[in-house]
Amino acid sequence: MTQRVSSDVAIIGAGPVGLFAVFQCGMLGLRCDVIDSLEAIGGQCTALYPEKPIYDIPGFPRVEAAALIAQLEAQAAPFTPRYHLAQTVESLTQEPGGGFRLETSRGNILHARAVIVAAGGGAFGPVRPPLEGLAEFEGRSVFYMVKRRQDFTGKRIVIAGGGDSAVDWALSLENVAKSVNVVHRRDKFRAAPENLAQLHVLASSGRVVLNIPYQLQSLEGKDGQIEKIGIISTEGNIQYLEADILLPFFGLNAAPGPILQWGLSMEKNRIAINPVTAETSVSGIYAVGDIVSYEHKLKLILTGFAEAAQAAHTIYARLNPGQALHTEYSTTRGIPSLPVKDGKVS
Amino acid sequence: MTQRVSSDVAIIGAGPVGLFAVFQCGMLGLRCDVIDSLEAIGGQCTALYPEKPIYDIPGFPRVEAAALIAQLEAQAAPFTPRYHLAQTVESLTQEPGGGFRLETSRGNILHARAVIVAAGGGAFGPVRPPLEGLAEFEGRSVFYMVKRRQDFTGKRIVIAGGGDSAVDWALSLENVAKSVNVVHRRDKFRAAPENLAQLHVLASSGRVVLNIPYQLQSLEGKDGQIEKIGIISTEGNIQYLEADILLPFFGLNAAPGPILQWGLSMEKNRIAINPVTAETSVSGIYAVGDIVSYEHKLKLILTGFAEAAQAAHTIYARLNPGQALHTEYSTTRGIPSLPVKDGKVS
Repeated sequence: MTQRVSSDVAIIGAGPVGLFAVFQCGMLGLRCDVIDSLEAIGGQCTALYPEKPIYDIPGFPRVEAAALIAQLEAQAAPFTPRYHLAQTVESLTQEPGGGFRLETSRGNILHARAVIVAAGGGAFGPVRPPLEGLAEFEGRSVFYMVKRRQDFTGKRIVIAGGGDSAVDWALSLENVAKSVNVVHRRDKFRAAPENLAQLHVLASSGRVVLNIPYQLQSLEGKDGQIEKIGIISTEGNIQYLEADILLPFFGLNAAPGPILQWGLSMEKNRIAINPVTAETSVSGIYAVGDIVSYEHKLKLILTGFAEAAQAAHTIYARLNPGQALHTEYSTTRGIPSLPVKDGKVS
Repeated sequence: MTQRVSSDVAIIGAGPVGLFAVFQCGMLGLRCDVIDSLEAIGGQCTALYPEKPIYDIPGFPRVEAAALIAQLEAQAAPFTPRYHLAQTVESLTQEPGGGFRLETSRGNILHARAVIVAAGGGAFGPVRPPLEGLAEFEGRSVFYMVKRRQDFTGKRIVIAGGGDSAVDWALSLENVAKSVNVVHRRDKFRAAPENLAQLHVLASSGRVVLNIPYQLQSLEGKDGQIEKIGIISTEGNIQYLEADILLPFFGLNAAPGPILQWGLSMEKNRIAINPVTAETSVSGIYAVGDIVSYEHKLKLILTGFAEAAQAAHTIYARLNPGQALHTEYSTTRGIPSLPVKDGKVS
């Protein structure tokens, strides 16, 4: 079901910097919608390195990425942001009156008085194998994630990849699927040792077939339904696997995506901003964090945090012309409660 | 005993931003000396509001000021900064070769290749009562802090002020002093209730005399030795207290002090910088935190942290011309160990 909502600020990207932008906007009485391509908040911190320690966040001699995200989420929570996850912003257009209309890949419509782009390296998505005709099968018999295990009951499944996702899903689907083939281009898997040991037990009893070192080569089928998957070995041997489902688990990559089409001035594929206001070349659109560029820009999470503070204050001044904002210390003021806004925020 | 030391960067001010500058410099292999007017690190966080919660540090939904300082100290510790406390930088001069020479109020000489001014509101010092001839007695019979309680054995002590320091020291000195008079301009004290209750017990038994509401009016004595202290009530009644020692506890205030004389371009009493390099008008001197000014400057601790990162990177580039520094994520690199530098850092 699609939504139509409005708020003060639409924040594109729920990574650490986007989350802190929610807090900074909240401190100034601005309510936020937050959109992210991933299924969870936290951006790369959650998706790529949740357990890695980070050493350069002020006040944290060491903090694991996932723990930092949990802290930032808690800090933003009093300002009740609405998160719109697992969707990208497909279009961003100006509305009469100075606001913006955003439409997401799930068909949700967001109206906002200002926009902060905090999209880091761009929208994350699955790495797609370079196979002819792939798009026809995607979402019908090729899936990049498993939502419900029971959807695959009785199916002939081919899993491609050699990381944790590939191994975990081979183990998990083996007892519902009709058959499980794993295709991996190397001899070795990069996965948790205990799971890998279990995979080899299943393989030696024939309940899972390991095709290594093999790569995906072709898809055959019709009307979106795979019938046969061609795989090729390092030496050039080709085999065909009869299959109903292909699950490629090659990780995530990021791409700026539709952001390139919003008319923002770019510099080396990143959005040019005024570093002290976070303003882009389009009035009312701001950008912060790793996606921005200016002379001497540091790609540090901390720098993104500070840019988020600058953006929030600039937006406050834009939306409240003539109202001076005296910077007060949070110690004096605490966390303000959000003012109720004449029905604008549902 | 005075010291003569040298390091890469002299940081003036050991508040939160100065401490984080130590860390950022350390991550780039730069070792730091840190000078502060207070006896402890932490600046205002330690001196003025250690127990107050701060809400706007990224990743901390709530952190008490003293706890934040402890975290920042721990984060800086691997880079073994040298702290020079309870002293101000009296002179800052350029040396042939591009470095700087700093001399502190304790006569310590510091040589550094670059300077970061992180002095916040300026050097903190005690609020001095506006009494004629005060300077003659300061450090001899007028003291703003008690270093050793036994120095006051058998003395007739006048304590001025109505806060925790005044009350605590009245209680603590009562059983070594010959007499304790407390002078406070209001009826009410602002101090911990249990200590206040104890003070009133001592007052009712005559062991401490409360002169309220009275203010200091005059000092009499010679050769730096107080003999008599004039006090005046709200209604204008004047009394004289015979005394050996005056302890005024009126809190701390901050003044930019000698910083004004270093030839740095100022803007509204603050140091003008380029916000993306933290450079002042003098090459090799950088400034960060509440003491700086530029258009759209936010007086947030966070903003100071980010400026410290910019300063550290600019200094690295200055001291290592031609060596590109690729920003790496701390997750990849961890905390580097400090390189041993050909005897420069003792």
